[in-house]
Amino acid sequence: MPRYKLTIEYDGAPFSGWQIQADQTTVQGTLIAAIEAFSGEKVQLQGAGRTDAGVHARGQVAHVDLAKDWDTDTVRDALNAHLRPHPVAILSAEKAAADFNARTSAIKRHYLYRILNRRSDLTLDLGHAWRVPRPLDTAAMQAAAQRLVGKHDFTTFRSTECQAKSPVKTLDRLDVERHGDEVNVLASARSFLHNQVRSMVGSLVAVGEGKCSADDLQRALDARDRAACGQVAPPDGLYLMRVDYEAK
Amino acid sequence: MPRYKLTIEYDGAPFSGWQIQADQTTVQGTLIAAIEAFSGEKVQLQGAGRTDAGVHARGQVAHVDLAKDWDTDTVRDALNAHLRPHPVAILSAEKAAADFNARTSAIKRHYLYRILNRRSDLTLDLGHAWRVPRPLDTAAMQAAAQRLVGKHDFTTFRSTECQAKSPVKTLDRLDVERHGDEVNVLASARSFLHNQVRSMVGSLVAVGEGKCSADDLQRALDARDRAACGQVAPPDGLYLMRVDYEAK
Repeated sequence: MPRYKLTIEYDGAPFSGWQIQADQTTVQGTLIAAIEAFSGEKVQLQGAGRTDAGVHARGQVAHVDLAKDWDTDTVRDALNAHLRPHPVAILSAEKAAADFNARTSAIKRHYLYRILNRRSDLTLDLGHAWRVPRPLDTAAMQAAAQRLVGKHDFTTFRSTECQAKSPVKTLDRLDVERHGDEVNVLASARSFLHNQVRSMVGSLVAVGEGKCSADDLQRALDARDRAACGQVAPPDGLYLMRVDYEAK
Repeated sequence: MPRYKLTIEYDGAPFSGWQIQADQTTVQGTLIAAIEAFSGEKVQLQGAGRTDAGVHARGQVAHVDLAKDWDTDTVRDALNAHLRPHPVAILSAEKAAADFNARTSAIKRHYLYRILNRRSDLTLDLGHAWRVPRPLDTAAMQAAAQRLVGKHDFTTFRSTECQAKSPVKTLDRLDVERHGDEVNVLASARSFLHNQVRSMVGSLVAVGEGKCSADDLQRALDARDRAACGQVAPPDGLYLMRVDYEAK
Protein backbone atom coordinates (compact mmCIF):
# COMPACT_ATOMS: atom_id res chain seq x y z
CA MET A 1 0.00 0.00 0.00
CA PRO A 2 1.81 3.18 -1.16
CA ARG A 3 2.32 5.95 1.38
CA TYR A 4 1.86 9.58 0.32
CA LYS A 5 3.34 12.68 1.92
CA LEU A 6 1.07 15.71 1.55
CA THR A 7 2.18 19.33 2.03
CA ILE A 8 -0.82 21.40 3.02
CA GLU A 9 -1.80 25.07 3.27
CA TYR A 10 -4.86 26.35 5.12
CA ASP A 11 -6.57 29.37 6.55
CA GLY A 12 -7.29 28.28 10.13
CA ALA A 13 -10.06 30.83 10.72
CA PRO A 14 -13.10 28.66 9.92
CA PHE A 15 -11.75 25.49 11.55
CA SER A 16 -11.88 24.12 15.09
CA GLY A 17 -8.19 23.31 14.71
CA TRP A 18 -6.38 20.47 12.98
CA GLN A 19 -7.50 17.44 14.98
CA ILE A 20 -10.64 15.59 13.93
CA GLN A 21 -13.54 15.92 16.37
CA ALA A 22 -17.17 14.85 16.19
CA ASP A 23 -19.58 17.66 15.22
CA GLN A 24 -16.75 20.11 14.49
CA THR A 25 -15.29 21.29 11.21
CA THR A 26 -11.59 20.51 11.48
CA VAL A 27 -8.74 20.55 8.97
CA GLN A 28 -7.96 16.86 9.49
CA GLY A 29 -11.63 15.90 9.16
CA THR A 30 -12.01 17.99 5.99
CA LEU A 31 -8.91 16.36 4.47
CA ILE A 32 -10.02 12.83 5.38
CA ALA A 33 -13.44 13.45 3.78
CA ALA A 34 -11.74 14.67 0.57
CA ILE A 35 -9.31 11.73 0.48
CA GLU A 36 -12.11 9.23 1.07
CA ALA A 37 -14.29 10.83 -1.64
CA PHE A 38 -11.35 10.61 -4.06
CA SER A 39 -10.12 7.10 -3.24
CA GLY A 40 -13.28 5.38 -2.08
CA GLU A 41 -11.30 4.00 0.87
CA LYS A 42 -11.47 4.53 4.62
CA VAL A 43 -8.22 6.28 5.49
CA GLN A 44 -6.16 7.49 8.41
CA LEU A 45 -4.26 10.74 8.16
CA GLN A 46 -1.38 11.69 10.44
CA GLY A 47 -0.29 15.33 10.58
CA ALA A 48 3.04 16.78 11.71
CA GLY A 49 1.47 19.35 14.01
CA ARG A 50 -1.90 19.63 15.71
CA THR A 51 -2.55 23.32 15.11
CA ASP A 52 -5.16 24.98 17.34
CA ALA A 53 -8.40 26.61 16.25
CA GLY A 54 -7.64 29.68 14.13
CA VAL A 55 -3.98 28.80 13.54
CA HIS A 56 -2.86 28.77 9.89
CA ALA A 57 -0.45 26.65 7.88
CA ARG A 58 1.71 27.41 4.87
CA GLY A 59 3.44 24.03 5.03
CA GLN A 60 1.71 21.49 7.28
CA VAL A 61 2.72 17.91 6.41
CA ALA A 62 0.63 14.75 6.70
CA HIS A 63 0.87 11.17 5.47
CA VAL A 64 -1.78 8.76 4.25
CA ASP A 65 -1.77 5.24 2.79
CA LEU A 66 -3.85 4.54 -0.31
CA ALA A 67 -4.44 1.16 -1.98
CA LYS A 68 -3.59 2.39 -5.46
CA ASP A 69 -0.28 3.60 -6.89
CA TRP A 70 -1.54 6.99 -8.08
CA ASP A 71 0.38 9.59 -10.05
CA THR A 72 1.21 12.19 -7.39
CA ASP A 73 0.04 15.18 -9.47
CA THR A 74 -3.30 13.41 -9.88
CA VAL A 75 -3.54 12.99 -6.10
CA ARG A 76 -2.80 16.70 -5.55
CA ASP A 77 -5.23 17.98 -8.19
CA ALA A 78 -8.05 15.55 -7.33
CA LEU A 79 -7.82 16.29 -3.60
CA ASN A 80 -7.87 20.02 -4.29
CA ALA A 81 -11.05 19.57 -6.34
CA HIS A 82 -12.66 17.61 -3.48
CA LEU A 83 -11.50 20.17 -0.89
CA ARG A 84 -13.37 23.09 -2.50
CA PRO A 85 -14.72 25.41 -1.20
CA HIS A 86 -12.87 24.87 2.07
CA PRO A 87 -9.75 27.07 2.47
CA VAL A 88 -7.46 24.02 2.52
CA ALA A 89 -5.15 23.17 -0.39
CA ILE A 90 -2.67 20.41 -1.13
CA LEU A 91 0.52 22.17 -2.28
CA SER A 92 2.22 18.89 -3.19
CA ALA A 93 1.77 15.14 -2.98
CA GLU A 94 4.83 12.88 -3.00
CA LYS A 95 5.49 9.17 -2.61
CA ALA A 96 7.02 8.42 0.79
CA ALA A 97 8.84 5.43 2.28
CA ALA A 98 6.70 2.90 4.13
CA ASP A 99 8.27 3.97 7.43
CA PHE A 100 7.80 7.73 6.84
CA ASN A 101 5.67 9.26 9.56
CA ALA A 102 4.70 12.93 9.24
CA ARG A 103 4.68 13.35 13.01
CA THR A 104 7.47 11.16 14.36
CA SER A 105 9.91 11.49 11.42
CA ALA A 106 9.92 15.29 11.65
CA ILE A 107 13.28 16.71 12.71
CA LYS A 108 12.31 20.39 12.79
CA ARG A 109 9.18 22.51 12.79
CA HIS A 110 9.19 26.18 11.77
CA TYR A 111 6.55 28.65 12.92
CA LEU A 112 5.97 32.30 12.01
CA TYR A 113 4.01 34.67 14.22
CA ARG A 114 2.81 37.88 12.51
CA ILE A 115 2.17 41.01 14.59
CA LEU A 116 0.94 44.28 13.11
CA ASN A 117 2.21 46.99 15.41
CA ARG A 118 -0.25 49.81 14.73
CA ARG A 119 -3.28 51.57 16.13
CA SER A 120 -5.47 51.23 13.04
CA ASP A 121 -7.82 48.28 12.67
CA LEU A 122 -6.75 45.48 10.34
CA THR A 123 -8.40 45.21 6.93
CA LEU A 124 -6.47 43.03 4.47
CA ASP A 125 -4.77 41.18 7.35
CA LEU A 126 -7.86 40.64 9.49
CA GLY A 127 -7.69 37.16 11.05
CA HIS A 128 -4.16 36.75 9.69
CA ALA A 129 -2.14 38.74 12.21
CA TRP A 130 -2.30 40.09 15.79
CA ARG A 131 -2.74 43.83 16.02
CA VAL A 132 -0.72 45.33 18.89
CA PRO A 133 -1.34 49.09 19.17
CA ARG A 134 1.40 50.09 21.61
CA PRO A 135 4.82 50.70 19.96
CA LEU A 136 6.99 47.61 20.42
CA ASP A 137 10.70 47.78 21.25
CA THR A 138 11.72 44.93 18.96
CA ALA A 139 15.40 45.14 19.94
CA ALA A 140 14.36 44.43 23.55
CA MET A 141 12.13 41.59 22.32
CA GLN A 142 14.97 40.07 20.28
CA ALA A 143 17.38 40.24 23.23
CA ALA A 144 14.82 38.69 25.60
CA ALA A 145 13.96 35.96 23.08
CA GLN A 146 17.54 34.69 23.22
CA ARG A 147 16.99 33.75 26.90
CA LEU A 148 14.50 31.13 25.69
CA VAL A 149 16.72 29.60 22.99
CA GLY A 150 18.30 26.27 23.95
CA LYS A 151 17.22 23.30 26.07
CA HIS A 152 14.85 24.26 28.87
CA ASP A 153 11.92 23.09 30.92
CA PHE A 154 9.17 25.12 29.19
CA THR A 155 6.44 24.40 31.76
CA THR A 156 5.82 28.17 32.06
CA PHE A 157 5.01 28.40 28.34
CA ARG A 158 2.88 25.25 28.12
CA SER A 159 -0.88 24.94 28.09
CA THR A 160 -2.33 23.17 31.10
CA GLU A 161 -3.96 20.89 28.54
CA CYS A 162 -0.62 19.89 26.99
CA GLN A 163 -0.28 16.11 26.67
CA ALA A 164 3.47 15.92 26.00
CA LYS A 165 5.31 13.53 28.34
CA SER A 166 8.12 15.97 29.12
CA PRO A 167 8.12 19.78 29.36
CA VAL A 168 11.80 19.82 28.34
CA LYS A 169 12.33 20.98 24.76
CA THR A 170 15.19 22.41 22.75
CA LEU A 171 14.31 25.70 21.07
CA ASP A 172 16.65 26.18 18.11
CA ARG A 173 15.59 29.63 17.04
CA LEU A 174 13.47 32.51 18.33
CA ASP A 175 14.00 35.68 16.33
CA VAL A 176 12.10 38.95 16.31
CA GLU A 177 12.28 41.00 13.10
CA ARG A 178 10.63 44.29 12.23
CA HIS A 179 9.60 45.21 8.67
CA GLY A 180 7.84 48.58 8.92
CA ASP A 181 4.65 48.09 10.96
CA GLU A 182 4.98 44.32 10.81
CA VAL A 183 6.84 42.42 13.53
CA ASN A 184 7.61 38.77 12.79
CA VAL A 185 8.59 36.18 15.38
CA LEU A 186 10.30 33.11 13.89
CA ALA A 187 10.45 29.98 16.02
CA SER A 188 12.11 26.66 15.13
CA ALA A 189 12.46 23.44 17.13
CA ARG A 190 12.25 19.69 16.70
CA SER A 191 8.93 19.91 18.55
CA PHE A 192 6.92 22.35 20.63
CA LEU A 193 4.63 22.04 23.63
CA HIS A 194 0.95 22.91 23.28
CA ASN A 195 0.56 26.73 23.05
CA GLN A 196 4.32 27.20 23.43
CA VAL A 197 4.81 29.60 20.51
CA ARG A 198 1.74 31.68 21.37
CA SER A 199 2.78 31.79 25.05
CA MET A 200 6.34 32.87 24.20
CA VAL A 201 5.04 35.53 21.78
CA GLY A 202 2.59 36.86 24.37
CA SER A 203 5.44 37.31 26.87
CA LEU A 204 7.76 38.83 24.26
CA VAL A 205 5.09 41.42 23.44
CA ALA A 206 4.94 42.30 27.16
CA VAL A 207 8.72 42.87 26.96
CA GLY A 208 8.28 44.95 23.78
CA GLU A 209 5.65 47.09 25.50
CA GLY A 210 8.02 47.71 28.42
CA LYS A 211 5.80 45.85 30.89
CA CYS A 212 8.57 43.43 31.78
CA SER A 213 12.27 42.91 31.16
CA ALA A 214 14.42 40.12 29.78
CA ASP A 215 15.28 39.28 33.40
CA ASP A 216 11.57 38.99 34.22
CA LEU A 217 11.20 36.61 31.27
CA GLN A 218 14.17 34.60 32.52
CA ARG A 219 12.62 34.38 36.00
CA ALA A 220 9.30 33.26 34.50
CA LEU A 221 11.09 30.50 32.55
CA ASP A 222 13.05 29.43 35.63
CA ALA A 223 9.87 29.34 37.74
CA ARG A 224 8.56 26.40 35.64
CA ASP A 225 5.11 27.56 36.58
CA ARG A 226 2.29 28.22 34.14
CA ALA A 227 1.04 31.01 36.41
CA ALA A 228 4.27 32.92 35.68
CA CYS A 229 3.29 33.21 32.01
CA GLY A 230 1.69 36.43 30.84
CA GLN A 231 -0.83 36.68 28.03
CA VAL A 232 -1.07 34.01 25.34
CA ALA A 233 -1.02 35.56 21.84
CA PRO A 234 -4.20 34.97 19.79
CA PRO A 235 -4.18 32.20 17.16
CA ASP A 236 -4.73 34.60 14.22
CA GLY A 237 -1.06 35.47 13.82
CA LEU A 238 0.39 31.94 13.98
CA TYR A 239 1.49 29.98 10.89
CA LEU A 240 3.05 26.52 10.68
CA MET A 241 5.47 27.37 7.87
CA ARG A 242 7.51 24.24 7.23
CA VAL A 243 8.38 20.81 8.62
CA ASP A 244 11.81 19.30 7.95
CA TYR A 245 12.63 15.61 7.57
CA GLU A 246 15.91 13.73 7.13
CA ALA A 247 16.92 13.61 3.48
CA LYS A 248 16.03 10.17 2.12
CA MET B 1 -11.66 75.30 7.30
CA PRO B 2 -8.71 72.91 7.95
CA ARG B 3 -7.91 70.36 5.27
CA TYR B 4 -6.96 66.82 6.29
CA LYS B 5 -4.92 64.29 4.33
CA LEU B 6 -5.98 60.72 5.07
CA THR B 7 -3.91 57.63 4.24
CA ILE B 8 -6.24 54.68 3.84
CA GLU B 9 -6.01 50.89 3.68
CA TYR B 10 -8.83 48.63 2.48
CA ASP B 11 -9.75 45.18 1.33
CA GLY B 12 -11.51 45.84 -1.97
CA ALA B 13 -13.40 42.53 -2.05
CA PRO B 14 -16.74 43.65 -0.55
CA PHE B 15 -16.82 47.01 -2.34
CA SER B 16 -18.12 48.15 -5.71
CA GLY B 17 -14.91 50.09 -6.10
CA TRP B 18 -13.78 53.43 -4.70
CA GLN B 19 -16.21 55.86 -6.30
CA ILE B 20 -19.48 56.67 -4.56
CA GLN B 21 -22.57 55.34 -6.33
CA ALA B 22 -26.22 55.21 -5.34
CA ASP B 23 -27.35 51.82 -3.98
CA GLN B 24 -23.79 50.41 -3.95
CA THR B 25 -21.37 49.88 -1.09
CA THR B 26 -18.25 51.79 -2.11
CA VAL B 27 -15.08 52.76 -0.27
CA GLN B 28 -15.65 56.49 -0.82
CA GLY B 29 -19.27 56.22 0.31
CA THR B 30 -18.28 54.24 3.42
CA LEU B 31 -15.62 56.83 4.30
CA ILE B 32 -17.96 59.79 3.77
CA ALA B 33 -20.58 58.17 6.03
CA ALA B 34 -17.93 57.67 8.76
CA ILE B 35 -16.61 61.24 8.43
CA GLU B 36 -20.13 62.71 8.54
CA ALA B 37 -21.04 60.58 11.58
CA PHE B 38 -17.89 61.82 13.33
CA SER B 39 -18.06 65.52 12.39
CA GLY B 40 -21.77 66.09 12.01
CA GLU B 41 -20.99 67.91 8.74
CA LYS B 42 -21.79 67.21 5.09
CA VAL B 43 -18.40 66.56 3.50
CA GLN B 44 -16.75 65.96 0.17
CA LEU B 45 -13.89 63.49 -0.08
CA GLN B 46 -11.41 63.44 -2.97
CA GLY B 47 -9.27 60.32 -3.46
CA ALA B 48 -5.97 59.97 -5.32
CA GLY B 49 -7.08 56.93 -7.31
CA ARG B 50 -10.49 55.56 -8.27
CA THR B 51 -9.78 51.87 -7.66
CA ASP B 52 -12.12 49.38 -9.35
CA ALA B 53 -14.37 46.85 -7.65
CA GLY B 54 -12.24 44.26 -5.86
CA VAL B 55 -9.01 46.28 -6.02
CA HIS B 56 -7.23 46.81 -2.69
CA ALA B 57 -5.25 49.65 -1.16
CA ARG B 58 -2.36 49.73 1.29
CA GLY B 59 -1.88 53.46 0.87
CA GLN B 60 -4.77 55.25 -0.86
CA VAL B 61 -4.78 58.98 -0.10
CA ALA B 62 -7.78 61.30 0.17
CA HIS B 63 -8.44 64.81 1.42
CA VAL B 64 -11.40 66.29 3.27
CA ASP B 65 -12.21 69.68 4.80
CA LEU B 66 -13.67 69.80 8.30
CA ALA B 67 -14.94 72.87 10.17
CA LYS B 68 -13.04 72.08 13.35
CA ASP B 69 -9.31 72.06 13.99
CA TRP B 70 -9.15 68.50 15.33
CA ASP B 71 -6.13 66.72 16.75
CA THR B 72 -5.09 64.44 13.89
CA ASP B 73 -4.78 61.29 16.06
CA THR B 74 -8.33 61.93 17.23
CA VAL B 75 -9.49 62.13 13.60
CA ARG B 76 -7.75 58.82 12.79
CA ASP B 77 -9.03 56.93 15.83
CA ALA B 78 -12.58 58.29 15.67
CA LEU B 79 -12.92 57.55 11.97
CA ASN B 80 -11.64 54.01 12.52
CA ALA B 81 -14.28 53.51 15.22
CA HIS B 82 -16.99 54.74 12.82
CA LEU B 83 -15.66 52.60 9.95
CA ARG B 84 -16.10 49.28 11.81
CA PRO B 85 -16.91 46.61 10.76
CA HIS B 86 -16.05 47.60 7.18
CA PRO B 87 -12.56 46.51 6.07
CA VAL B 88 -11.41 50.11 5.64
CA ALA B 89 -8.94 51.76 8.03
CA ILE B 90 -7.36 55.18 8.32
CA LEU B 91 -3.61 54.58 8.70
CA SER B 92 -2.89 58.23 9.34
CA ALA B 93 -4.56 61.63 9.36
CA GLU B 94 -2.45 64.76 8.82
CA LYS B 95 -3.08 68.45 8.41
CA ALA B 96 -2.64 69.54 4.79
CA ALA B 97 -2.23 72.89 3.05
CA ALA B 98 -5.43 74.54 1.79
CA ASP B 99 -4.31 73.91 -1.82
CA PHE B 100 -3.41 70.24 -1.26
CA ASN B 101 -5.48 68.00 -3.53
CA ALA B 102 -5.14 64.23 -3.12
CA ARG B 103 -5.81 63.68 -6.83
CA THR B 104 -4.23 66.59 -8.65
CA SER B 105 -1.25 67.17 -6.32
CA ALA B 106 -0.08 63.56 -6.65
CA ILE B 107 3.24 63.25 -8.47
CA LYS B 108 3.50 59.46 -8.46
CA ARG B 109 1.28 56.45 -7.86
CA HIS B 110 2.68 53.02 -7.00
CA TYR B 111 0.78 49.80 -7.63
CA LEU B 112 1.61 46.19 -6.76
CA TYR B 113 0.07 43.24 -8.58
CA ARG B 114 0.35 39.88 -6.76
CA ILE B 115 0.31 36.64 -8.77
CA LEU B 116 0.52 33.20 -7.16
CA ASN B 117 2.08 30.96 -9.79
CA ARG B 118 0.86 27.54 -8.70
CA ARG B 119 -1.68 24.85 -9.49
CA SER B 120 -3.16 24.59 -6.00
CA ASP B 121 -6.19 26.65 -5.06
CA LEU B 122 -5.61 29.72 -2.90
CA THR B 123 -6.49 29.58 0.80
CA LEU B 124 -4.87 32.34 2.87
CA ASP B 125 -4.51 34.54 -0.24
CA LEU B 126 -7.99 33.98 -1.67
CA GLY B 127 -9.27 37.27 -3.11
CA HIS B 128 -5.85 38.84 -2.48
CA ALA B 129 -3.88 37.49 -5.45
CA TRP B 130 -4.36 36.07 -8.95
CA ARG B 131 -3.64 32.35 -9.21
CA VAL B 132 -1.89 31.49 -12.50
CA PRO B 133 -1.34 27.70 -12.78
CA ARG B 134 1.01 27.54 -15.78
CA PRO B 135 4.70 28.10 -14.90
CA LEU B 136 5.64 31.71 -15.70
CA ASP B 137 8.94 32.69 -17.29
CA THR B 138 9.48 35.78 -15.17
CA ALA B 139 12.73 36.72 -16.93
CA ALA B 140 10.78 36.95 -20.20
CA MET B 141 8.08 38.97 -18.44
CA GLN B 142 10.63 41.39 -16.98
CA ALA B 143 12.30 41.87 -20.39
CA ALA B 144 8.93 42.46 -22.12
CA ALA B 145 7.82 44.85 -19.38
CA GLN B 146 10.70 47.20 -20.23
CA ARG B 147 9.12 47.79 -23.66
CA LEU B 148 6.23 49.51 -21.88
CA VAL B 149 8.36 51.76 -19.66
CA GLY B 150 8.57 55.37 -20.83
CA LYS B 151 6.19 57.78 -22.56
CA HIS B 152 3.72 56.01 -24.83
CA ASP B 153 0.19 56.12 -26.18
CA PHE B 154 -1.33 53.39 -23.97
CA THR B 155 -4.63 53.09 -25.88
CA THR B 156 -4.07 49.32 -26.17
CA PHE B 157 -3.98 49.01 -22.38
CA ARG B 158 -6.88 51.32 -21.61
CA SER B 159 -10.46 50.42 -20.76
CA THR B 160 -13.00 51.56 -23.35
CA GLU B 161 -14.69 53.29 -20.39
CA CYS B 162 -11.61 55.32 -19.58
CA GLN B 163 -12.40 59.02 -19.20
CA ALA B 164 -8.84 60.41 -19.35
CA LYS B 165 -8.39 63.18 -21.92
CA SER B 166 -5.20 61.73 -23.36
CA PRO B 167 -4.05 58.10 -23.75
CA VAL B 168 -0.41 59.26 -23.53
CA LYS B 169 1.19 58.46 -20.19
CA THR B 170 4.72 58.08 -18.87
CA LEU B 171 5.30 54.76 -17.15
CA ASP B 172 8.25 55.16 -14.76
CA ARG B 173 8.58 51.58 -13.59
CA LEU B 174 7.25 48.15 -14.51
CA ASP B 175 9.19 45.38 -12.78
CA VAL B 176 8.47 41.68 -12.47
CA GLU B 177 9.97 39.92 -9.43
CA ARG B 178 9.68 36.29 -8.36
CA HIS B 179 9.75 35.24 -4.70
CA GLY B 180 9.17 31.47 -4.69
CA ASP B 181 5.64 30.84 -5.98
CA GLU B 182 4.79 34.53 -5.78
CA VAL B 183 5.31 36.83 -8.75
CA ASN B 184 5.02 40.55 -8.07
CA VAL B 185 4.55 43.22 -10.72
CA LEU B 186 5.48 46.72 -9.53
CA ALA B 187 4.16 49.68 -11.53
CA SER B 188 4.82 53.36 -10.91
CA ALA B 189 3.71 56.45 -12.83
CA ARG B 190 2.39 59.95 -12.23
CA SER B 191 -0.99 58.63 -13.34
CA PHE B 192 -2.50 55.60 -15.03
CA LEU B 193 -5.34 55.06 -17.48
CA HIS B 194 -8.41 53.09 -16.40
CA ASN B 195 -7.52 49.36 -16.23
CA GLN B 196 -3.97 50.09 -17.39
CA VAL B 197 -2.13 48.07 -14.72
CA ARG B 198 -4.49 45.08 -14.99
CA SER B 199 -4.26 45.20 -18.81
CA MET B 200 -0.46 45.32 -18.77
CA VAL B 201 -0.30 42.47 -16.20
CA GLY B 202 -2.67 40.34 -18.28
CA SER B 203 -0.44 40.73 -21.32
CA LEU B 204 2.75 40.12 -19.31
CA VAL B 205 1.27 36.85 -18.02
CA ALA B 206 0.62 35.83 -21.66
CA VAL B 207 4.33 36.49 -22.28
CA GLY B 208 5.28 34.50 -19.17
CA GLU B 209 3.15 31.58 -20.36
CA GLY B 210 4.93 31.63 -23.73
CA LYS B 211 1.75 32.61 -25.60
CA CYS B 212 3.36 35.75 -26.98
CA SER B 213 6.75 37.44 -27.15
CA ALA B 214 8.15 40.81 -26.16
CA ASP B 215 7.91 41.74 -29.87
CA ASP B 216 4.21 40.81 -29.86
CA LEU B 217 3.73 43.05 -26.82
CA GLN B 218 5.58 45.84 -28.60
CA ARG B 219 3.35 45.45 -31.68
CA ALA B 220 0.24 45.51 -29.46
CA LEU B 221 1.44 48.76 -27.84
CA ASP B 222 2.26 50.29 -31.23
CA ALA B 223 -1.16 49.28 -32.62
CA ARG B 224 -2.85 51.74 -30.21
CA ASP B 225 -5.89 49.51 -30.43
CA ARG B 226 -7.77 48.09 -27.45
CA ALA B 227 -8.50 44.95 -29.51
CA ALA B 228 -4.76 44.19 -29.54
CA CYS B 229 -4.81 43.76 -25.75
CA GLY B 230 -5.01 40.24 -24.39
CA GLN B 231 -6.67 39.31 -21.11
CA VAL B 232 -7.18 41.84 -18.34
CA ALA B 233 -5.90 40.52 -15.01
CA PRO B 234 -8.59 40.15 -12.31
CA PRO B 235 -8.89 42.87 -9.62
CA ASP B 236 -8.03 40.51 -6.73
CA GLY B 237 -4.26 40.89 -7.15
CA LEU B 238 -4.07 44.68 -7.48
CA TYR B 239 -3.04 47.00 -4.64
CA LEU B 240 -2.64 50.79 -4.64
CA MET B 241 0.45 50.85 -2.44
CA ARG B 242 1.48 54.48 -2.15
CA VAL B 243 0.90 57.94 -3.56
CA ASP B 244 3.72 60.49 -3.58
CA TYR B 245 3.39 64.27 -3.25
CA GLU B 246 5.91 67.07 -3.47
CA ALA B 247 7.56 67.65 -0.12
CA LYS B 248 6.00 70.69 1.53
